[in-house]
Amino acid sequence: MGHSDNKNIAVLVSGGGTNLQALIDAEKSGEIPNGRISLVISSNPDAYALTRAFNNNIKTAVAQWAAFKPDRKSFSGEILRLLLENHIDLVIYAGFMIILDESVVKAFPNAMINVHPALIPAFCGEGFYGLRVHRAVLESGVKLTGATVHFVNEICDGGPIILQKSVEVLNDDTPQTLQKRVSEQAEQVLLPKAAALFCEGRIEVVGTKTIIKEYDYDRIKTR
Amino acid sequence: MGHSDNKNIAVLVSGGGTNLQALIDAEKSGEIPNGRISLVISSNPDAYALTRAFNNNIKTAVAQWAAFKPDRKSFSGEILRLLLENHIDLVIYAGFMIILDESVVKAFPNAMINVHPALIPAFCGEGFYGLRVHRAVLESGVKLTGATVHFVNEICDGGPIILQKSVEVLNDDTPQTLQKRVSEQAEQVLLPKAAALFCEGRIEVVGTKTIIKEYDYDRIKTR
Repeated sequence: MGHSDNKNIAVLVSGGGTNLQALIDAEKSGEIPNGRISLVISSNPDAYALTRAFNNNIKTAVAQWAAFKPDRKSFSGEILRLLLENHIDLVIYAGFMIILDESVVKAFPNAMINVHPALIPAFCGEGFYGLRVHRAVLESGVKLTGATVHFVNEICDGGPIILQKSVEVLNDDTPQTLQKRVSEQAEQVLLPKAAALFCEGRIEVVGTKTIIKEYDYDRIKTR
Repeated sequence: MGHSDNKNIAVLVSGGGTNLQALIDAEKSGEIPNGRISLVISSNPDAYALTRAFNNNIKTAVAQWAAFKPDRKSFSGEILRLLLENHIDLVIYAGFMIILDESVVKAFPNAMINVHPALIPAFCGEGFYGLRVHRAVLESGVKLTGATVHFVNEICDGGPIILQKSVEVLNDDTPQTLQKRVSEQAEQVLLPKAAALFCEGRIEVVGTKTIIKEYDYDRIKTR
C-alpha cells in the first residue's frame, strides 16, 4: 500500500494505554506521516491497552511479567525477540511498568523513547516515578514543572532529551491534579511529536544531546 | 505625597545595572504600584548603575567591596547599616556580585529577592553563576531552561521560589545567546513582577514555599 518506507513502531504498555490511544489518534489524523504503530506489547494480559490495539487492528503480543518474574533477563529476551521478529524501528515506553535489561536498550540505540513527567534534570532518576514525582515537585515549591521525552539509555532518565514542555504549578495543585495536567502534555503533545520527528529522520543524536533538524519545535509550539 | 504606605525598595548592584533599569522603567510605568526604589547601593564606585540611579533621582550609596575585601563581615555590616538607615522593606540583588553574610539575610527574612538564570532546582547552587549556568545547560542537552526569582536565605539558590519562567533552548544557541534570552525574561518580566507582588503583600511564605495570593500568575502570563 505504499507504506514500505514507513517506520514500524512498537508500543510497550502495562495498563490502560492512554499514551497508546494518543499515539493511535495521532497516526490516524496524519500527525505521524512516516510511522505506523505495528505492534503493541503488554506485560499484563488484562491491560485495557490491548483492547485499544485490537479495536484499531494493531497486532498485539503479551509478554506476561508475572510468568517471568523475577527473571528480568528472560523477560527482556522475550521482548527483544518480539521487537526483532516484527522489524521494529522505534520502541515507545507508554506506561510500561517493567524495567528491561541492557540487552534491549543496546539493540535499539537511540531508538527507544520514554516520557518522564518532569523537566529533566529536575525530579528524575531512581525513585522518581508516578505520583512521587509530583509530590516532590509540590514539596519543593517550584512554580514550573513539565514533561520530558527522551531516548532510553543505560542511565535512568539519562538518555538524550528530545522534547520538553513546561507546565505551571498552581497554588491549589495536588499531586493528582498536577499529574493530570503534566500527563496531558506528555501524551497529547510530546509523545506523538517525538514519534513523528523520529520517523521523519529529524532527530540527530550528537553525544548526549539531540538536534532536531529542519524543525523549529520551540518557536512553533511555545507561547 | 500620599506615598507613605509605599514599600521602600533597595537595589544592590555591581555593574551596568540593566536589572535596575528594568525596575526603574516598571516603577515609572506604574507596574509596581505600592513600591518605590528609594536606594541603590553599589559595591563598585564606577558602576554605570549609579548613573542610571542619578538620572532618575534615586538616592545612591557606595559600599566599595575593594575597600573592605576580604572582610565580608564588615562589608555586610555596612550594607546592613545602609538598609536599616533608609528604612528599606525589600532588598533586590540585581547583578550584585558580592555574597553577603548571614547578618543581612537574617535582618531581611523573606524580604531579599534574587534572580537565578535557570529553572531551580536545575543548574543552581555553588559554582553556577553567569555563563557557567548556560554552558552547563547547553552541555546537558535540555530543551528548556529559564529564570527563577526567589527569596534569599542561608542556602545558595535555596530560598522559597516566587516566580519562574521557561525559555526554550535552540539548536544554534551559544552560552551568550542563551544568556541574553534568559536575562531578558528575568529582567523585563520576572523581577518587576516579583517586586510588585511583594509590595502588594501578595507573597505568602509557607515553609519552603510561596503562595501568590489573589493573583493567578500562571494563567495570566503563560501561553
